[in-house]
Amino acid sequence: MPVTLTTTDPDFEAGFAAMLAAKREDAADVGDVVAGIIAEVRARGDAALVELTNRFDRTDLTADRLRFTPAEIDAACAGVAADDRAALELAAERIRAYHARQMPPDALWTDETGAELGWRWTPVAAAGLYVPGGQASYPSSVLMNAIPARVAGVPRLAVCVPTPGGEINPLVLLACRIAGVDEIWRVGGAQAVAAMAYGTETIRPVDKITGPGNAYVAAAKRQVFGRVGIDSIAGPSEVLVIADGAQHPDWLALDLLAQAEHDADAQAILMTPDAALAQAVVAAVDRILPTLPRAAIAGASWRDHGTVILTRDLAEAAALSDRIAPEHLELCVDDPQALVAQVRHAGAIFLGGWTPEAAGDYVSGPNHVLPTARSARFSSGLSVLDFLKRTTLSRLNPAALAAIGPAAVTLAMSEGLSAHARSVQVRLDTLNEAP
Amino acid sequence: MPVTLTTTDPDFEAGFAAMLAAKREDAADVGDVVAGIIAEVRARGDAALVELTNRFDRTDLTADRLRFTPAEIDAACAGVAADDRAALELAAERIRAYHARQMPPDALWTDETGAELGWRWTPVAAAGLYVPGGQASYPSSVLMNAIPARVAGVPRLAVCVPTPGGEINPLVLLACRIAGVDEIWRVGGAQAVAAMAYGTETIRPVDKITGPGNAYVAAAKRQVFGRVGIDSIAGPSEVLVIADGAQHPDWLALDLLAQAEHDADAQAILMTPDAALAQAVVAAVDRILPTLPRAAIAGASWRDHGTVILTRDLAEAAALSDRIAPEHLELCVDDPQALVAQVRHAGAIFLGGWTPEAAGDYVSGPNHVLPTARSARFSSGLSVLDFLKRTTLSRLNPAALAAIGPAAVTLAMSEGLSAHARSVQVRLDTLNEAP
Repeated sequence: MPVTLTTTDPDFEAGFAAMLAAKREDAADVGDVVAGIIAEVRARGDAALVELTNRFDRTDLTADRLRFTPAEIDAACAGVAADDRAALELAAERIRAYHARQMPPDALWTDETGAELGWRWTPVAAAGLYVPGGQASYPSSVLMNAIPARVAGVPRLAVCVPTPGGEINPLVLLACRIAGVDEIWRVGGAQAVAAMAYGTETIRPVDKITGPGNAYVAAAKRQVFGRVGIDSIAGPSEVLVIADGAQHPDWLALDLLAQAEHDADAQAILMTPDAALAQAVVAAVDRILPTLPRAAIAGASWRDHGTVILTRDLAEAAALSDRIAPEHLELCVDDPQALVAQVRHAGAIFLGGWTPEAAGDYVSGPNHVLPTARSARFSSGLSVLDFLKRTTLSRLNPAALAAIGPAAVTLAMSEGLSAHARSVQVRLDTLNEAP
Repeated sequence: MPVTLTTTDPDFEAGFAAMLAAKREDAADVGDVVAGIIAEVRARGDAALVELTNRFDRTDLTADRLRFTPAEIDAACAGVAADDRAALELAAERIRAYHARQMPPDALWTDETGAELGWRWTPVAAAGLYVPGGQASYPSSVLMNAIPARVAGVPRLAVCVPTPGGEINPLVLLACRIAGVDEIWRVGGAQAVAAMAYGTETIRPVDKITGPGNAYVAAAKRQVFGRVGIDSIAGPSEVLVIADGAQHPDWLALDLLAQAEHDADAQAILMTPDAALAQAVVAAVDRILPTLPRAAIAGASWRDHGTVILTRDLAEAAALSDRIAPEHLELCVDDPQALVAQVRHAGAIFLGGWTPEAAGDYVSGPNHVLPTARSARFSSGLSVLDFLKRTTLSRLNPAALAAIGPAAVTLAMSEGLSAHARSVQVRLDTLNEAP
């Protein structure tokens, strides 16, 4: 049974605060092991990479077999069922169309002093995408990471995916091909992250590493950050469903369970002013849960982290939602446009009962890599911006420098930076000496 | 004497690689001390904050005197010289105008299936700016951090600045006022970062912390990251000046020294195809250096990290510049537009001889908080985007779900996530049952 909180209860605030503060993740401290792996790969390159890969993935690879060949990719892709291929292609096309609209414009203008000012966006030279192997090998994540990089114009896109026991999910290779990945490497874990950050004899280094992974991969990304850019490190996923009384209990129950089936640490929250609906949804969850192949995982999540919150009205639900800053927010209400205007902090919002989060996980178009653990208060989901960087541009002419240079001299002197001041003054002096 | 490298030398590549790999910063490992300070502030709030502040800053504060009062700020601002005030106001106005153009547009469109898709940008609810005290207390940094936050629409803007021995730079308070800061607190160090991240009885928590600081502040920002957002953690500053033979040696020498005077770890690099110019610049540095108040710092930087690189031509200089990915890049050449097109990776580019970096540090308009240590390969300077986050929006109607939902079901099943699949299918079934 999930916790039920009622906002009119005197102890609601304590219960809500406890929910916000609850730590759902019990991350193993693998920092030292990972530091050792990274040092090995930096020091011995491919030799270390091959040894570690063969040990952890029970493979028998050599350096010249780390990379999937075009023929190997062809063969795997050829075995993919037609409907799987068509679904991946539809998803890729929609993700591409959505992210293409995110490309930010360059700017260049001349101000009233004659100064030319602006900025220019350019892609990183190379991106590396980590793709987990085995159970958590999700082709949809390949699309969600690779397509924004490609749309951003990243010239080189490498994927690292472990092949435990030599196994690879053919859909992962097909997703790489559809997304336009340039290189696919049979390596995983911290050693893959180290290879992408520092390079080896066969894998050239990249500038940005994204993609989900286990505790070792997350620790490795943290440790190489600075040497390369990384995306955010995701915590357990969560959904908040705000519903009015007119919704189908089964729809909401399945939306909650779709979140819960990810991971025993995942969290599904229902907020509604309608106590009867809440009761019906909880009953529907209880009925559907045992029928799920992942009942054990979803059941643990729902039991340990599932929460039902009865609110006075939808406005109160929106205000509480902002305190959660949920990764996923479903507004299953009659007038979602009115409610969305009251919400400020969420990773992704799904408006109306016909927009299940699962559609957004795959085919709607927006990215499914989103800020977790309340970080939607200050951060955003993955986008083309993650694969771009902005260079600011300025060009002064003598008139512009004459107009604004004296203020720079004054401020530099007030900060005690006389070479700063003189580097401007020497130019102003030249102007003043001119006939 | 700085190192001189010549690209036509057979050992150039080794020398250039050594320069790239050189670690200029010897950061003290203060992680444990900082973790203790953060734990204290979390556990005991204001009591710990006041104790730590009084101990480290040799003050005699109480919790109710941590915040500068309007009268205290008025009094300090009244003592600022008129030309300093005017310079700050000019700088603020220009920084505001530049950053206002960075505001990203929201988007919402309906695609061919009837799906409404888009995104919305919103500011963080509260930002905290760290401002160092004492020597490194730079009013220009207050403007560069606070104005983008204000332009982004952040409703609450708090500054923490230590007052060692009770001293405060009046220009810092004036810069806060001009930029529209809401709260100014007399606290610094790791304890200030902890207070902003977790809150105390008097200081409400913020969602994003930016601003420069010493090793303790940097470590504290790393440790609270995740709880709040942070800006990048800056390393030592650097400039690369690419010059052709037609430049004034003294101008270039002062540009190099302006970088060198920041910090003994700072780096100033000159690249030119003109050996005579290089010689003249080095001679000018030697002549000017002893006349600087900060000669000891600038001299150490120039001696230990200063580098002159003689290239075959300007195109080669641009290619080498991309391998450095400099924080600041001056193109002191006759045709900077032609050269800028050849450069991909730099934090800020200053075009032409009339655009000294120091003008950009204060009054040009672009931000002076820029990616250091080659991180311009994958990251950007501070901007309004650092104070905003993007929420993706999607709304499907029955027709849109009918068009794309089956692909979501297929992909969810292929990933073994049956509740995902059923959350879509239950809606499709309702559609199919409809008369």
